[in-house]
Amino acid sequence: MTDKITVGVIGAGRIGKIHVSNIVYYMPEARVKTIADANLTPEIEAWAKNLGIPHVTNNAEDIFGDPEISVVLICSSTDTHADYIIKAARSGKNIFCEKPVDLSVEKVKKALAVVKEAGVRLQIGFNRRFDHNFAHVRKLIDDGAIGQVQLVKITSRDPAPPPISYVKVSGGLFLDMTIHDFDMARFQAKSEVEEVYAQGAVLIDPEIGKAGDVDTAIIMLKFANGALGVIDNSRKAVYGYDQRVEVFGSAGAAAAENDTPSQVRLSDTSGVHADKPLYFFLERYKDAYIEEMKAFFKAIKEGTETPVTGQDGLMDLAIGLAATKSLAEHRPVKIFEVL
Amino acid sequence: MTDKITVGVIGAGRIGKIHVSNIVYYMPEARVKTIADANLTPEIEAWAKNLGIPHVTNNAEDIFGDPEISVVLICSSTDTHADYIIKAARSGKNIFCEKPVDLSVEKVKKALAVVKEAGVRLQIGFNRRFDHNFAHVRKLIDDGAIGQVQLVKITSRDPAPPPISYVKVSGGLFLDMTIHDFDMARFQAKSEVEEVYAQGAVLIDPEIGKAGDVDTAIIMLKFANGALGVIDNSRKAVYGYDQRVEVFGSAGAAAAENDTPSQVRLSDTSGVHADKPLYFFLERYKDAYIEEMKAFFKAIKEGTETPVTGQDGLMDLAIGLAATKSLAEHRPVKIFEVL
Amino acid sequence: MTDKITVGVIGAGRIGKIHVSNIVYYMPEARVKTIADANLTPEIEAWAKNLGIPHVTNNAEDIFGDPEISVVLICSSTDTHADYIIKAARSGKNIFCEKPVDLSVEKVKKALAVVKEAGVRLQIGFNRRFDHNFAHVRKLIDDGAIGQVQLVKITSRDPAPPPISYVKVSGGLFLDMTIHDFDMARFQAKSEVEEVYAQGAVLIDPEIGKAGDVDTAIIMLKFANGALGVIDNSRKAVYGYDQRVEVFGSAGAAAAENDTPSQVRLSDTSGVHADKPLYFFLERYKDAYIEEMKAFFKAIKEGTETPVTGQDGLMDLAIGLAATKSLAEHRPVKIFEVL
Amino acid sequence: MTDKITVGVIGAGRIGKIHVSNIVYYMPEARVKTIADANLTPEIEAWAKNLGIPHVTNNAEDIFGDPEISVVLICSSTDTHADYIIKAARSGKNIFCEKPVDLSVEKVKKALAVVKEAGVRLQIGFNRRFDHNFAHVRKLIDDGAIGQVQLVKITSRDPAPPPISYVKVSGGLFLDMTIHDFDMARFQAKSEVEEVYAQGAVLIDPEIGKAGDVDTAIIMLKFANGALGVIDNSRKAVYGYDQRVEVFGSAGAAAAENDTPSQVRLSDTSGVHADKPLYFFLERYKDAYIEEMKAFFKAIKEGTETPVTGQDGLMDLAIGLAATKSLAEHRPVKIFEVL
Repeated sequence: MTDKITVGVIGAGRIGKIHVSNIVYYMPEARVKTIADANLTPEIEAWAKNLGIPHVTNNAEDIFGDPEISVVLICSSTDTHADYIIKAARSGKNIFCEKPVDLSVEKVKKALAVVKEAGVRLQIGFNRRFDHNFAHVRKLIDDGAIGQVQLVKITSRDPAPPPISYVKVSGGLFLDMTIHDFDMARFQAKSEVEEVYAQGAVLIDPEIGKAGDVDTAIIMLKFANGALGVIDNSRKAVYGYDQRVEVFGSAGAAAAENDTPSQVRLSDTSGVHADKPLYFFLERYKDAYIEEMKAFFKAIKEGTETPVTGQDGLMDLAIGLAATKSLAEHRPVKIFEVL
Repeated sequence: MTDKITVGVIGAGRIGKIHVSNIVYYMPEARVKTIADANLTPEIEAWAKNLGIPHVTNNAEDIFGDPEISVVLICSSTDTHADYIIKAARSGKNIFCEKPVDLSVEKVKKALAVVKEAGVRLQIGFNRRFDHNFAHVRKLIDDGAIGQVQLVKITSRDPAPPPISYVKVSGGLFLDMTIHDFDMARFQAKSEVEEVYAQGAVLIDPEIGKAGDVDTAIIMLKFANGALGVIDNSRKAVYGYDQRVEVFGSAGAAAAENDTPSQVRLSDTSGVHADKPLYFFLERYKDAYIEEMKAFFKAIKEGTETPVTGQDGLMDLAIGLAATKSLAEHRPVKIFEVL
Repeated sequence: MTDKITVGVIGAGRIGKIHVSNIVYYMPEARVKTIADANLTPEIEAWAKNLGIPHVTNNAEDIFGDPEISVVLICSSTDTHADYIIKAARSGKNIFCEKPVDLSVEKVKKALAVVKEAGVRLQIGFNRRFDHNFAHVRKLIDDGAIGQVQLVKITSRDPAPPPISYVKVSGGLFLDMTIHDFDMARFQAKSEVEEVYAQGAVLIDPEIGKAGDVDTAIIMLKFANGALGVIDNSRKAVYGYDQRVEVFGSAGAAAAENDTPSQVRLSDTSGVHADKPLYFFLERYKDAYIEEMKAFFKAIKEGTETPVTGQDGLMDLAIGLAATKSLAEHRPVKIFEVL
Repeated sequence: MTDKITVGVIGAGRIGKIHVSNIVYYMPEARVKTIADANLTPEIEAWAKNLGIPHVTNNAEDIFGDPEISVVLICSSTDTHADYIIKAARSGKNIFCEKPVDLSVEKVKKALAVVKEAGVRLQIGFNRRFDHNFAHVRKLIDDGAIGQVQLVKITSRDPAPPPISYVKVSGGLFLDMTIHDFDMARFQAKSEVEEVYAQGAVLIDPEIGKAGDVDTAIIMLKFANGALGVIDNSRKAVYGYDQRVEVFGSAGAAAAENDTPSQVRLSDTSGVHADKPLYFFLERYKDAYIEEMKAFFKAIKEGTETPVTGQDGLMDLAIGLAATKSLAEHRPVKIFEVL
């Protein structure tokens, strides 16, 4: 019991709740001692109590000041991430922070510098690396099954756009949605992105356009190792969450199809019918959220580097910023231009 | 807290442990108070303690005599099932009993009579009905998507045969392995089996033959509603656990393929390669074990009939006995001959 | 030009026309000189002329008496097959005869005896052996990819039943439809069938029952090499022609799915939709008809045994008769009982 | 007989031979009277004789001057296309010309002007529009099954690069290989391309780089109707010819997978294995070549516009030139810049 990792969680919104219940149900190696949420509600208190969480507060300082807590999960809104990372690092805590660290390269760099100085571990919440399909593709690459990577293709489409109010503060499609795909692209290519060219369109909801964003996009990537990449995004795939990866190399290609609720096919007079993909990220990445946290705790326990570092978070942000710039200036943009 | 169903579990072998940890992790509606195992070991005690089970005993009477316990899970060896059912029923407990109830029709009938007299609920552990794929096939049938059922085809192959020592006491392939398929056949056909014809062979391991059993079989079924069915079994599919169902009807057909670890396909110079099925029942029916227990608790809470009744257990046994007789006598056998 | 095989064709019905046009368009190694049809119509004459066939007659003797013709294709009605085989053999012609040779074992045996005596080649029109999918399954078996064959499963369902008038003279489901599957089973098992057990039902059209036949059936086979087999038949699969084979062995399993018009999948709000199978045998076995004839001509040219012999035709008939007997007598029937 | 379309064919190389034998075997509505090849060989003469072609010549003028010939197929080398189109048009012949018309926009425009003036029909050999899979995707679009087109994704990879000698005179990847994909993109988007951005790399063979070309590329398209498109190309997919199309729209998505030699899956200890795609264009587009010619003859007979016009050829060329310019100048290029 005493060698369990003691965790404090900042932010009890949707993603914070997922992590907390995953730890409670699936990770005997850790326990959540404190949950801090600036907007503490009776609903959160009841939920925490039901899960047996001993301490709930509206003050994150209760976590930073608790010597028993060795790990902090930052699940609050993006604008608070960098500050909390800095505070947690200075308190000597290891940190798991949801993506993105921040939308400002300067702030991210500063936070990473503090983390480095403090000598703590930091993992960024790019959960898709832990998806069974995408991890398997990467394993095939690591095993040499496809040879030298030449092309990385990512399909990433949401079942429905977020509310316009969210779109307005999201940082734009590339920093909100595609940033996951940028991380996936780097993960599969095993190389940094050097240049981005982005094309976007407003084809789904004119309100998204009025909010200054696009809802449909194709983004081309050039990797340092010579490989090329392409991502296509849509805010609205009527058939559900479309999350596929294909990596093509000198010895073959590995392609991950969508997960589905069942493997049942119905044949009738109109055709052969199969399931749509799992509806959205909560369903599709249910296990990936567990796997990423387990991998984080494992890294903490074993004292190894985390599988998604602060530097990963910085590079993914930079690609997002470069893509945003590319779309605005209608030209290919080098990553160093925004870094 | 007080309205949680309080559970006592008899037998802490593999399947007992699965049910206990499923309840602990996934079923807030219930709590396991007592685990009884005739061969109580320190390992079991440690395991139970770790899961927070308050009471461990080597005496099942501790469960029957505990007025707080309203539900008993019988996960001990088959030869004890009928007696425990009778004792639990007479103690007024609702019962979940692993399959099969017994290999003797008489003993099963007697146990069911006591259950009926006591007015308690009984569910038999035919977990495959709760598999996402097979449940979806059944739902399509219920929805009328395939019309009137005409053919039911079940493929059921294990990745490797059990030890010969187990084969010798298993009751034979039809009562040990195929009994699951008989239950599935009745579940999908929504009709009782009237007649069985079984053909078997020893193609995998001569030792199985020496033990008086077969390792490969095809069993044909005739249902009361006129539909026909066929099951094929093998004790050893080198590519893993092969569990498929196909139901053909007047308006179409529904077919459930195997689950796989990933949806990744590798294309290389030798072909296009996909995953083998999930290895065995622990992997394939992981969620089905949870769903069956949830359904049981739901029936208990709502006072409805359980989804797999004692009568189901009796009929599945009868088909197994009829199949055994058919193989021995080399002729089609009516179910009433063994009932 | 002079070394082309010169062919005479008896019967210009549907199947005769297929073979003739296949030879004209795809087989430069042969030429059709004469077409004989007892009911010669202007339509047949026009069709033959258009294909450049030099000679059309209502008298099959014109073929038997023509020394230039070395090969006879018998595509007339079943009741004429045996006689034509005998006449063709006595005229020294090599023979391709549509299935079945006859519904009487005696007549088949007699015809085969004459063929043997005459020293000519005979191929029976079991075209499915030449289907790209089924031939590929067999190749995998020959290559040892699945090891020792243990189970052979055949799904064979028509899109719609034939007219009742045809059902009445068809010889029954097992001799009309399943006979193809019996041949396929022997082809894949690479072993003779020793025993049959058949179960049938009238689930599609009561008129079929009144005609003394069944429209739905499952037939179990026991092979000489110890393997087991099962065939399921339906006269009406609403989604089209369902023709699948699965062979399971000690080292793996090979399964042939249906062919479809396209490889396109449509994803929409209701699911993921693919094509139904190719509609019926003319579409599905289009290329198989070509391949079987090419294989026949190759055997003739090279003086080797034909790939589907008269003995094959006899054994397939015997299984059909045994299945018919099994259904009537409600018991497993040995092949030798009907041979 | 007299109402058959009489055809003259210029060029008896690989593609010319395909068209001629397709006409002989599959198109009773037409007959090839004359084949002209500047490098007439005994091999060509024998081949033509064997197919029953009455006239073979080394002088294309024999075709232009023959009043009986109403249709000319131009299958000679690219540099001769424009001149032959002009001559054929001035002779009042309808024209089928292999792609590309020419690599010079000026020459194409001039040829099209003569065609227009002459009032003859011209079809360009973009055969992939007639592929069963791609035509089915387009049909789904036409039927409204995917709603408004938003994204067009094309995967187009060859099994092996052509000889370096060919690469040097090919006009570069975009004009030699991708031009087919540009045509496909326009066909599926049902809209003209307005802008192109191309990225390329030499990842397969350094010799291709030395020849001034790339062997791997991703090309992004912007359509006039607002949709976006992306094509990825490789000169070497070790698993064979990879030809897929996916069109995503407001109501769904249609995706065409590769064709394969069989629908057989082998399950063994190492996984589940399926066929590689059909090897190369001769296998994959075998039927498409027949369909395109049938569609051409149909347009000629019915006096309607051909399904792939000279204007299509011009636009496809323009996209290729714009892509080439984009790669060279490292910026998005508008189509009007090269037109």
